[in-house]
Amino acid sequence: MEQLLRVQNFTVSRDGFGAGENQSLERPFGHADPGDMFAWAGATASWPHRTDPGGGRGLDDYFTRDFDRNIGAEIMGRNKFSPHRGPWLDHEWLGWWGDEPPFRTPVFVLTHDERPSFTLSDTTFHFANADPAEVLERAREAADGKDVRLGGGATTIRRFLDADLVDTMHIAVSTVELGAGARLWESPDELRDRFHLDVVPSSSGVTHHLFWRR
Amino acid sequence: MEQLLRVQNFTVSRDGFGAGENQSLERPFGHADPGDMFAWAGATASWPHRTDPGGGRGLDDYFTRDFDRNIGAEIMGRNKFSPHRGPWLDHEWLGWWGDEPPFRTPVFVLTHDERPSFTLSDTTFHFANADPAEVLERAREAADGKDVRLGGGATTIRRFLDADLVDTMHIAVSTVELGAGARLWESPDELRDRFHLDVVPSSSGVTHHLFWRR
Repeated sequence: MEQLLRVQNFTVSRDGFGAGENQSLERPFGHADPGDMFAWAGATASWPHRTDPGGGRGLDDYFTRDFDRNIGAEIMGRNKFSPHRGPWLDHEWLGWWGDEPPFRTPVFVLTHDERPSFTLSDTTFHFANADPAEVLERAREAADGKDVRLGGGATTIRRFLDADLVDTMHIAVSTVELGAGARLWESPDELRDRFHLDVVPSSSGVTHHLFWRR
Repeated sequence: MEQLLRVQNFTVSRDGFGAGENQSLERPFGHADPGDMFAWAGATASWPHRTDPGGGRGLDDYFTRDFDRNIGAEIMGRNKFSPHRGPWLDHEWLGWWGDEPPFRTPVFVLTHDERPSFTLSDTTFHFANADPAEVLERAREAADGKDVRLGGGATTIRRFLDADLVDTMHIAVSTVELGAGARLWESPDELRDRFHLDVVPSSSGVTHHLFWRR
């Protein structure tokens, strides 16, 4: 059975940045305000972090509810996992997500600085000093027949796009302008030679971009 | 936990009909051509009846892949199950779907003419001479905490809308014109007083209409 590598619910600014500059412990998205960037997702009924029963069930909800469908593993970059750079001083940092990370699968963190795997609730984090093709092979094995989510950030998605390993990609383009940061693209049209593209404006203000291989 | 009643992937003509006139064994949709009506769904990777690995993974695929997500039972009208009218002459008719119906849950067929339940592969058909609220209660119990799909046809959906039992509804409006048949609506705007509505044109030509309760 085919195991896809899928980017889902990845949000970029109107000018193509997945996060701002100067990431820190207090500002995981640097100078970008995640409240603005992810307002579209936070307003949906199926947003994984939602604690109350409300939320919209329109177009945007089809994307948030698809987050975990047939996903058996995630791959993410070092900077999605942590604001630290360089060798780990200790192993106390366990990610941004508290005791119950929303992934609920094995997660492979791409990093030059490996450290021991650890488990929080249903999520196990592994650390891989490997190239994209190698880590994808490990993630596919761990996914047990299901698809693999490529979780970002923008730099990590670019590496997998450049290696031509991405099968489908959902990018929500927000109305926020960032000016600088981690760039996914100058324009989504750059990818049209390799991907079909559906461009779908939502009433929430974001424009969903859906890519799948030609 | 909330158990929704959801209409999904229900396709109507541009003029609001879910099927044509003169249903028969040879023409389950009457004078309507299901090949035209459902072309949008048949072209997607996740269409339940697909046998080859191809198909699009754009916007339309988010709807076909959502068909079975968190669904624990289906309710359908008599005419979706069978072209026969009136009392059953025998119990040989087992539906249009062959040995492996795509539902894979309990299915409740609304009919004045009850008959014994039967099972085909993962699907069990029950026959209920009941009003919408009663059959919904039975379906919710059978769904074991999951949502219930309201499978159509148009007349059955109208009955549940009139009883205000529908929580969410995905209607694909095709470009086909039918002129007569089983009518869902004169216009989707009729429902705006009770539902939010996202209207989403797809590159396949259909326009997805997504309703959720106000």
